[in-house]
Amino acid sequence: MKKIIIASTSTLHEQLYLEYLLPALQSHFKNCKSILFIPYARPGGISHDKYTQKVAETFQVINISVKGIHEFENAETAIKNAEGIFTGGGNTFLLVSQLYKNNVMQLLSQTVKNGTPYLGTSAGSNICGLSMQTTNDMPIVYPPSFQTLGLVSFNLNPHYLDTDLESKHMGETREERIEEFHAFNAIPVLGLREGSWLEVKGEKITLKGNLSARLFQKNQLPTELDPESDLSNLK
Amino acid sequence: MKKIIIASTSTLHEQLYLEYLLPALQSHFKNCKSILFIPYARPGGISHDKYTQKVAETFQVINISVKGIHEFENAETAIKNAEGIFTGGGNTFLLVSQLYKNNVMQLLSQTVKNGTPYLGTSAGSNICGLSMQTTNDMPIVYPPSFQTLGLVSFNLNPHYLDTDLESKHMGETREERIEEFHAFNAIPVLGLREGSWLEVKGEKITLKGNLSARLFQKNQLPTELDPESDLSNLK
Repeated sequence: MKKIIIASTSTLHEQLYLEYLLPALQSHFKNCKSILFIPYARPGGISHDKYTQKVAETFQVINISVKGIHEFENAETAIKNAEGIFTGGGNTFLLVSQLYKNNVMQLLSQTVKNGTPYLGTSAGSNICGLSMQTTNDMPIVYPPSFQTLGLVSFNLNPHYLDTDLESKHMGETREERIEEFHAFNAIPVLGLREGSWLEVKGEKITLKGNLSARLFQKNQLPTELDPESDLSNLK
Repeated sequence: MKKIIIASTSTLHEQLYLEYLLPALQSHFKNCKSILFIPYARPGGISHDKYTQKVAETFQVINISVKGIHEFENAETAIKNAEGIFTGGGNTFLLVSQLYKNNVMQLLSQTVKNGTPYLGTSAGSNICGLSMQTTNDMPIVYPPSFQTLGLVSFNLNPHYLDTDLESKHMGETREERIEEFHAFNAIPVLGLREGSWLEVKGEKITLKGNLSARLFQKNQLPTELDPESDLSNLK
């Protein structure tokens, strides 16, 4: 049975890393003594070691040990044997490139679909969708494909940002960018605001947190979904 | 002799399309009765025809006729025969995909290097750099490569946006995204604010407009360049 948390962000303004999610994570990973961390997205270019250390310090609070996938001789074996898996944020292009380079994109998808508890934040959430095509990140490296894990049958836009009506900036708003995606693609896109996450339990998908999420579907006006909305049938 | 205008944006807040640039364009395209428009970036998914029509209406003001590259039977011949070329903004991933699909990326680069006057705005400016890896756009389609025209020996970040120190949003700032690019790439990046443009005349590159531009180089602190700065030696 799938058991997944797909979070918009790791960190809320003026909070500690994962602080707002810790109660949910304690329950989510309750059967895990240790989890596998995938640091490939390397926010700001931080090293795999440093990123893993930061995550380990946080999970220590809920008595879970953390080991980075880069510490294993074989990334595939590491995923197969993991009690739980967390993919952290950073740059989605880099993350996806590394997952393909290490030949674990498909294996990771299958492993999580088979029931290994998974947490994604930001870039680690982006890859839960059918493709990474609704990321906000810069294409700093060229991945072999934009296809991702497909743990849900739609795409995510983490860190969803509402249009600033006061702005004089003429660059595209987030909503305009997602509409552009829909000019050429039919996959629904869920804009997850910071503080929101999806809880996937088996085939049931629920919006968690205190905020609404913005749903974009091709040829339809965007709609706002309340917390606790059921997204199980979205595809 | 190269003759290029690389503009951050087509449109300033509360202005008409290309309004602020028209005096410069009148001089830039002074020997052109007609120009070739490349509408491939299709902002908001607008059709090639509609986009070209909008551009034609603007250039009519300075007595230059406009024909879209899609109106020609052969895109290569259209580029070879053009008196001047303008690539409009929209989605850079789409633009680059279409330039490769129509087999004109290299030809366009060579044609502009050989002296055909060129104007780029936004996505059309992004492709003037060595790669499109510092675009702000969403990866709505998968291009065969991120390499672009290389008309200058650095990369552009159009619509450069300063960090909002009041923001509670935790997504990466533009500066953080460019720094992430430099964690994995050595190409200098010029952040062009809306209202700024580069004028390239032969080997001379000059910052135009009233605003400073922000220059990012690997392992260096960003610097501000004043209007009329000479960027000829940046590589």
